[in-house]
Amino acid sequence: MFIHETTVRVLYADTDKAGVVYYGNYLRFFERGRTEYFRALGRSYADFEKMGILLTVVEVHARYHAPARYDERVVIRTWISRVTRTRIEFGYELLNDEGRKLCEGTTLLGCIGAETMRPAALPEEMMAMVKDKVVAAEKTR
Amino acid sequence: MFIHETTVRVLYADTDKAGVVYYGNYLRFFERGRTEYFRALGRSYADFEKMGILLTVVEVHARYHAPARYDERVVIRTWISRVTRTRIEFGYELLNDEGRKLCEGTTLLGCIGAETMRPAALPEEMMAMVKDKVVAAEKTR
Amino acid sequence: MFIHETTVRVLYADTDKAGVVYYGNYLRFFERGRTEYFRALGRSYADFEKMGILLTVVEVHARYHAPARYDERVVIRTWISRVTRTRIEFGYELLNDEGRKLCEGTTLLGCIGAETMRPAALPEEMMAMVKDKVVAAEKTR
Amino acid sequence: MFIHETTVRVLYADTDKAGVVYYGNYLRFFERGRTEYFRALGRSYADFEKMGILLTVVEVHARYHAPARYDERVVIRTWISRVTRTRIEFGYELLNDEGRKLCEGTTLLGCIGAETMRPAALPEEMMAMVKDKVVAAEKTR
Repeated sequence: MFIHETTVRVLYADTDKAGVVYYGNYLRFFERGRTEYFRALGRSYADFEKMGILLTVVEVHARYHAPARYDERVVIRTWISRVTRTRIEFGYELLNDEGRKLCEGTTLLGCIGAETMRPAALPEEMMAMVKDKVVAAEKTR
Repeated sequence: MFIHETTVRVLYADTDKAGVVYYGNYLRFFERGRTEYFRALGRSYADFEKMGILLTVVEVHARYHAPARYDERVVIRTWISRVTRTRIEFGYELLNDEGRKLCEGTTLLGCIGAETMRPAALPEEMMAMVKDKVVAAEKTR
Repeated sequence: MFIHETTVRVLYADTDKAGVVYYGNYLRFFERGRTEYFRALGRSYADFEKMGILLTVVEVHARYHAPARYDERVVIRTWISRVTRTRIEFGYELLNDEGRKLCEGTTLLGCIGAETMRPAALPEEMMAMVKDKVVAAEKTR
Repeated sequence: MFIHETTVRVLYADTDKAGVVYYGNYLRFFERGRTEYFRALGRSYADFEKMGILLTVVEVHARYHAPARYDERVVIRTWISRVTRTRIEFGYELLNDEGRKLCEGTTLLGCIGAETMRPAALPEEMMAMVKDKVVAAEKTR
């Protein structure tokens, strides 16, 4: 079990005319979360790509609880919620500085071979690294 | 029952280094779909905002089937899948020129008062306009 | 001499918390302008890429005169302001529906070989297509 | 004289199908640079907005020297290159980890009153804070 935390600061670029982060830009925050998750375990996602695979997003789900505002620091909590031989699902929770939940979501990623562009097994090294890190949904707090 | 169709052309700006549309940018396409849906019914979403309400995204779900590529024309099919007194759910299906399904998704929007920033009933005019347009999930093809 | 016009509608995704288009997103509008410019001449930029070249942006300049607002239709006027053996400069002018100038700018693009990633001559076909279309700065109105 | 440095890590979201950062997304990096510049001096830009002003971008210039790549750490060097009663110009230089210059640019910002939406003097506190920090063009290295 492992939950990673990183922080981003909301830019004008992230906001829309409602004065808060545009709903699509949370997916950018999710990406930052999962990228830094891998790095925290000692291997960057870019390293895995050099092994000849890509992780492509197969499915996304997000629930928006409260708006993230300009210049606010947002904590991105990231964990792995599920792993199979070819797929890996990340869970996310975004909180503001007062610990208020702003957004939660999941992204399901499928491993594909960079040459074949067809489903492939997760690299062994990735599997070894993450298999004991999976967090059950009810344990994310 | 009403399904709206509009078309976008994929820009470099939409793509990422995998050579295809970045997963977060499909939410931009969804926004275009629902904006043009309202316009096709004779009222722009901007008109509704002038009535003192906002529709904020409460929940998003997307499934990615095949990548949308640079310079490809993407058809965005948009319909309303559910309406309650304070919420409206849009369904989307994105197809390429050959009719291949690229992505499907839903966005649940909640109506809030622009001044109170609290849940509010959908404007009567919006409700009158959409209530007989709802498309059951199994009827989207 | 040739000036191309195309139109975009401003989305929430384009705006920021000031209620107007984010300054960086005008570069997306510039991209749309130059892409549709080529298509209007009968060849897509994607076609030229298939010939083994890339046009990379070397320099950008933009002046912002008045904000583009949500749901506004923006006319993008695009022309070629300069061509050399390896470079091509586009000029842009963005207007709203009342003809008010919102933004003007230029992008200088350098041709590079997709394999060598080094400067290369513009494809002959591109050169033949654009050489008599160049518009002197004082002739853009 | 003061030159501020901050670092960003390139995400998939920042890149385009050429495998490098999309030219428009450098303007996002510029925004991060100037926002953190103010914070480093002890006042956030958000603080100044609370005083009733906005800084809107009047002009942008950028020169692209070498592409920023996925997962690369980019150093953003930011300084003030010019100040008048109502305007402030920032200079930027982006470097990769090896110190190679990726991009340089300037943004000219005009101060406007948030209520009047007309040109206004920079807040006295901002002026006091920045007036001795201006860096002449030839002194940025």
